[in-house]
Amino acid sequence: MARLPPVTIRLGDRSCQVIVGDGRLDELGARTREVASTRRAALVTDSNVDQLYGDAAQASLAGAGLVVERVVLEPGEARKSMAEAEAICRRMVRAGLDRSSCVVALGGGVVGDLAGFAAAIFQRGVPVVQVPTTVVAQVDSSIGGKTAVNLPEGKNLAGAFHQPALVLADTATLATLPEREWAEGFAEIIKHAAIRDPEMLEVVTDLDARTGLAGLIHRNVALKARVVEQDERETTGARAHLNFGHTIGHAIENAAGYGRMLHGEAISLGLRAALYLSERHAGLAQEQSQRVLAALRHFSLPLVLPDDLMDEAVLESLGHDKKFVDGAIRFVLVPELGRALVSDRLTRADMIDALTHLRQAPGA
Amino acid sequence: MARLPPVTIRLGDRSCQVIVGDGRLDELGARTREVASTRRAALVTDSNVDQLYGDAAQASLAGAGLVVERVVLEPGEARKSMAEAEAICRRMVRAGLDRSSCVVALGGGVVGDLAGFAAAIFQRGVPVVQVPTTVVAQVDSSIGGKTAVNLPEGKNLAGAFHQPALVLADTATLATLPEREWAEGFAEIIKHAAIRDPEMLEVVTDLDARTGLAGLIHRNVALKARVVEQDERETTGARAHLNFGHTIGHAIENAAGYGRMLHGEAISLGLRAALYLSERHAGLAQEQSQRVLAALRHFSLPLVLPDDLMDEAVLESLGHDKKFVDGAIRFVLVPELGRALVSDRLTRADMIDALTHLRQAPGA
Repeated sequence: MARLPPVTIRLGDRSCQVIVGDGRLDELGARTREVASTRRAALVTDSNVDQLYGDAAQASLAGAGLVVERVVLEPGEARKSMAEAEAICRRMVRAGLDRSSCVVALGGGVVGDLAGFAAAIFQRGVPVVQVPTTVVAQVDSSIGGKTAVNLPEGKNLAGAFHQPALVLADTATLATLPEREWAEGFAEIIKHAAIRDPEMLEVVTDLDARTGLAGLIHRNVALKARVVEQDERETTGARAHLNFGHTIGHAIENAAGYGRMLHGEAISLGLRAALYLSERHAGLAQEQSQRVLAALRHFSLPLVLPDDLMDEAVLESLGHDKKFVDGAIRFVLVPELGRALVSDRLTRADMIDALTHLRQAPGA
Repeated sequence: MARLPPVTIRLGDRSCQVIVGDGRLDELGARTREVASTRRAALVTDSNVDQLYGDAAQASLAGAGLVVERVVLEPGEARKSMAEAEAICRRMVRAGLDRSSCVVALGGGVVGDLAGFAAAIFQRGVPVVQVPTTVVAQVDSSIGGKTAVNLPEGKNLAGAFHQPALVLADTATLATLPEREWAEGFAEIIKHAAIRDPEMLEVVTDLDARTGLAGLIHRNVALKARVVEQDERETTGARAHLNFGHTIGHAIENAAGYGRMLHGEAISLGLRAALYLSERHAGLAQEQSQRVLAALRHFSLPLVLPDDLMDEAVLESLGHDKKFVDGAIRFVLVPELGRALVSDRLTRADMIDALTHLRQAPGA
């Protein structure tokens, strides 16, 4: 198979290339040397990913002449904290890394967010190379420069915009994902399809035995790259479209308690809710909603709210996350597949309406 | 007295105005509203400054319609930590501040660095208004966007470049400074004179009973603003000139143990060492050195190394802070007053030579 061309995210002096392809992890060292004039790198990963790809990543970096400090974290969202970011920075100081060094983040969204944040603040900022190893990280969280840690009060409340110097997405690393982690990533892909690229809905359901995977990841990276170019710091509105399905999705994820539902599973529910509200308030045709629901169902993603998850808990979580201003909330709607808009007119009653809908089995 | 015009630091979409003048703290609220479209602000200060100026600052902000969350820290360098930055962010979340809020940093360098860093990372960055209340903070640390916290391994090892939305330097607040804190600020002013503006050496020694102070602060702000404009992220070299006297100065400060010597006192020693090395290696005329030493002496700043501070301790601290590459260290020299250069040729032996010099009483 011919190599896919890199995707360039054009952001002036913060531009970056995204390399996507099967088996490209061995290019990590040479590519890192191209973008960072350094001889020292911190390779940050978690113990699960480390067992699978830590040695290969380190070998590639060392082969390109880099001195590597390997920082292996316990897996899990709980590590995405200020204390852990500080611990990574301290390891880097003690290993002799300085302003001219760089960070390589090898793993899923948690590693990418945390190591990216450590890179953003270490010595007031050193380059980070993102090496995402999950579907969510490859198509979404590694692209666009958002880094973050959680506070006890909520997720991603502290962080930085810190564009990576390079993203290297080796799609071969997705082969080792557990089934649920594999499937949840498609919630973000299906979201991309809904807001920008509806033909992709059929691509994902026809994706046979993970063939054509690199092309699909590449297509999603390019799509997100264009959105980020339009609105790097989420100020003009384009980037807000990426939150389609996320307002209610995050609230459900939060109300369920972390660990019970994967992010993409909660987003699947959030997408169904947002499609329903798009039908009611933005004229989305029901058959278009059904195409999206069919894709979610294809990956066995949940479409019905668990019985024990009360409306009140979801609404309370929603209130923490988003502001109701004069009784209304900012909410992304899709009037037709491929096009999104931000509405300021949905109310608390509409949220309850959507949650009620999520308690019914989908029709088709 | 006519009002001084604001100094504009031109950095594209990160540009900022610096307002300097006597009694201008009461403009804080109105000026903040001009630069930040927000109704909520965290007013971060320490308990010393809070007692003197906390109420006035809060009244000005509230008078302009801002809801203020006042965060009062214990004074001292020890608070400049990741844990404290997290605590400030958590206070902000619990007080209902969000992406549209801002931070007002009222105090000296520690408050400015810490609150500036909290602003840089809260919700991935909110505007910060710097209200410096010490000489060092007004002429140096509040200008240029460097924010930082310390790690146990050393000072300012984590941080962010986060340009303030506004700096408001009320020179009336300097009247309440203890004598040593007043004097130490002049080490940075004298450094500015040495690298860019030698006529200022006579201005500082003629400064009578703190008259003409606003003009002097304004002159230093404008000087530093031009340097920052040339080299915002300390990559091209111009900003490195501001480190004149700081390589050995920091090492002395560190070796003495924090709390024993004020920053500016250590910098005074560092300046004498750098002047000596400039004479030996860059052709600086001895009478030019003497002009700078006379200015330092005028403010009773130390020029002789304490007997109990061993060369070894200073050199070890220097090695932590700066790298000797092939036996040489990057060091700022002044071949003639008003002009600086960065040399890559000084050695460990030169550092020992300078420390030996610092043990002798200055000639003039």
